[in-house]
This record gives sequence, C-alpha cells and structure tokens, in this order.
Amino acid sequence: MTRRTIIVKRDVQAKGKANAAAERERLGRRGTLVINILSSPGAGKTTLLEATARHFAGRRTMAVLVGDLETDRDAQRLAPLVPTVQLTTGGACHLELPLVQQGLTALGDPAVDFLFIENVGNLVCPASHDLAEHLRVVLVSTTEGDDKPGKYPKMFRTSQAMVITKTDLLPYLPFSVDAVTEDARQIQPQLDVLSLSALHESGVSDWCEYLEQQYQRQLAAYHEPAAK
Amino acid sequence: MTRRTIIVKRDVQAKGKANAAAERERLGRRGTLVINILSSPGAGKTTLLEATARHFAGRRTMAVLVGDLETDRDAQRLAPLVPTVQLTTGGACHLELPLVQQGLTALGDPAVDFLFIENVGNLVCPASHDLAEHLRVVLVSTTEGDDKPGKYPKMFRTSQAMVITKTDLLPYLPFSVDAVTEDARQIQPQLDVLSLSALHESGVSDWCEYLEQQYQRQLAAYHEPAAK
Repeated sequence: MTRRTIIVKRDVQAKGKANAAAERERLGRRGTLVINILSSPGAGKTTLLEATARHFAGRRTMAVLVGDLETDRDAQRLAPLVPTVQLTTGGACHLELPLVQQGLTALGDPAVDFLFIENVGNLVCPASHDLAEHLRVVLVSTTEGDDKPGKYPKMFRTSQAMVITKTDLLPYLPFSVDAVTEDARQIQPQLDVLSLSALHESGVSDWCEYLEQQYQRQLAAYHEPAAK
Repeated sequence: MTRRTIIVKRDVQAKGKANAAAERERLGRRGTLVINILSSPGAGKTTLLEATARHFAGRRTMAVLVGDLETDRDAQRLAPLVPTVQLTTGGACHLELPLVQQGLTALGDPAVDFLFIENVGNLVCPASHDLAEHLRVVLVSTTEGDDKPGKYPKMFRTSQAMVITKTDLLPYLPFSVDAVTEDARQIQPQLDVLSLSALHESGVSDWCEYLEQQYQRQLAAYHEPAAK
C-alpha cells in the first residue's frame, strides 16, 4: 500500500509539472512574463509591488495575484494601483497552480506584460511549487540577517534572482550585502542579485529595468517583435 | 481507501498528541519549563536566546534545541553560552516531537529549569505541531509590519505570548505596537505581549522576569516547593 501511494503521488506530481509547463508556454507565447515573488513574512513583497506598479504606470501593463492564509490586506493595498486578486489558502503555507489559475480567470485572464504572483510569506514550502512562472525572485530583507540562504537552500537554489530589501535600514543592522550574496551564490552561482529600499524608492528603477530586460528576452525567445 | 487513509492519519495524530502530553507531564513534573519559540525567519529567535542565556547565567539552568532545514549556524552561536543541540529537518518546515526527543537525549536529558526549543523560521507549519511545550511564544519583528497576526492566525491563536522584537528600529519603520497588539488579541484575547530589543539588551530583563513567573507558576502547579 505504501508503494502504491508513492506511485500515485508521482503521477500527480508529473501531471502538475506538465500543467505548469503548458501554462507557462501559453502565457509566454502571448507576451506575458510571469514572476513568482517569494520571501519570509514581512520582507516587503507588497511594498515592492506597489513601487513597481507606480514605476510602470502608463508604460507597461501588469496584474497581481496575491496569496495569504487569511485576510485580503495585501489586495486592499495593491488594488488602487493595479488589477489584483487575493488568493486565500485557508491555512496552506504556499500557493498551488490551480488556485493561481482560478485567480487568473477571476482577473479576466488579461494579456498584461507582467503577471506578478505574490506567494504566501514563507521561505520553505513555496519553493516546491511551480506556478508556471518564467522568473522566480526571492526577497531577503536586511533585517532578517545575512545567514538566510544557507538555512533555506531550496528557496535560493530554485530562484533566478535575489532582491535584498530594506537597504535604508543597513546603518542600524549587523547585515552584510557581500556576505548574503556570497552565501546565496554558493547555492546558486547564476543568481542575479539586486538591492533596494522600496519604501524610500531607492533602487526601484534598477529592479524595473531588470524586469524589462527579462521581458524583452522572453519576447525574443518566442520570436515575436518587441512591442511598444 | 481514502476513508481508511483518513482513519490512519487520525490514529497517528491521536498518538502524537498523547506522546506530547506525556512528555510535557514528565518534564513539568521534574521542574523543567519547556518553551517553544516560533517566528518568521530572521525575527531574532537566536539573538533573544543569546541575551536570555547571558541574563540567566549563574541564576537558572537552561538548554536549547534549535531547528533548521540545514546548517548548524544557530547552534554555533548558542553553544558558547549554553548546552545546545542543532536539529536539522533536511527540508521539513517545522520540528516534530520525535526529533525533539532525539535532541533531548543527545543533550543528556538534563534537568534544566528552562528548555528552549527554537523552531524552524516559519509562521505557518510549526503552529500545527505540539512539541510538549508548556509555553508557546511567537516573535514578531517590528520590521515585518504590524499586519502579521491576522495573516497567520493559527500561529497567534495557539501561542500564550507574543514578543515584539527589534524595537530599536521603531523610529525608522511604519510599525505600530498598539496595532499589532490589537490585531493579535482579536485572535487570542489572553495573549501576553512583551516588546524588546535583544541586540541592544533593552526589555530583556522583563522577558526573563516573565519566564521566571511562568516557571514559578508551573512549579506551584505541580505542588513542588520553589527551588533556589
């Protein structure tokens, strides 16, 4: 019976993987870059998305799916700026693709340039779930300490970019940008590293420029001419 | 088959519950207060335990079991101050009682006054696991934002105390101690609330006084005379 259970689990995982790949292909082909944003609770995902929405206003279209166990607090913050749907997991520690797809349908499946998925605040469970993203970004707040990558390696191993947030607090904290970068790159040598303070809007334009590059690269990969 | 699986799960949960209750009784009866410390990654669990160990040095005996997915970084910090065993979960997002009991055996099952269990940094999964603690304490860093209790309700509902950490950063942050307290007490009206900066050793003596009260209360509950 144990053996049968394992096989069932494998089938489910294989099907989930295929679904994520198909959804990624569909969204990429029509020109939407999907970005899965992950971090500890309170590292600044929503604040970064607010700043990102302000930066791209009138230049790029975007929408946000935001995940939490309970409440629609993050959606309330983002909705004045950008089309947003709150996904509540009802206790689960991460988002899964079917819930993301329901959220996308609720948004009207818009052909935006950027679709951001703000995952549940958690450095463990969300690392194991493919949400059809093209880009996985992990945020590390300066206030969390520079020892986090080695302690939560899967999150950093599966990410393409690390964004160091709350750099305005660096003068008051025992945190080294070099140390956290070195620690993360021991796990994932190709990791792109950015740092910013979204609250003080410092480094946000570099972050948006990075997103723009990723967007253009994806358009090129699908052999479509760059829009706009 | 689905039904049978559910029954098996219930049996396992019931057995786990009974084991935790028996271990709690055993440790309480011999005069050890077990404290399960939970928080997001980087909220300051290890720093608080370092300050606690310095405060109680020569006055109360203590030991620490510290949980992480990978690395023994936290144990390396604590070991110079206090008997410590690092528990690595190998990817799991929380500690469970059997691993805690292995750690206790590795420590030599010492009859200390305080046994601290520093859980994996995570505001979700650890809430569902009884580690035979007498006191569950959730840390919330001022840097995480004051909206966390409502977003992670189970963690706060199952805790007896909330410790607001990193209060030295309050001048630089959009964080209200009143707001986070009100939010948490809507979920758990009996919650004890303390605030401190372990890095600056501010509020640490109040925290240790609180632990001392809990310790004395437990001794009284088991009808033993207060030692020392």
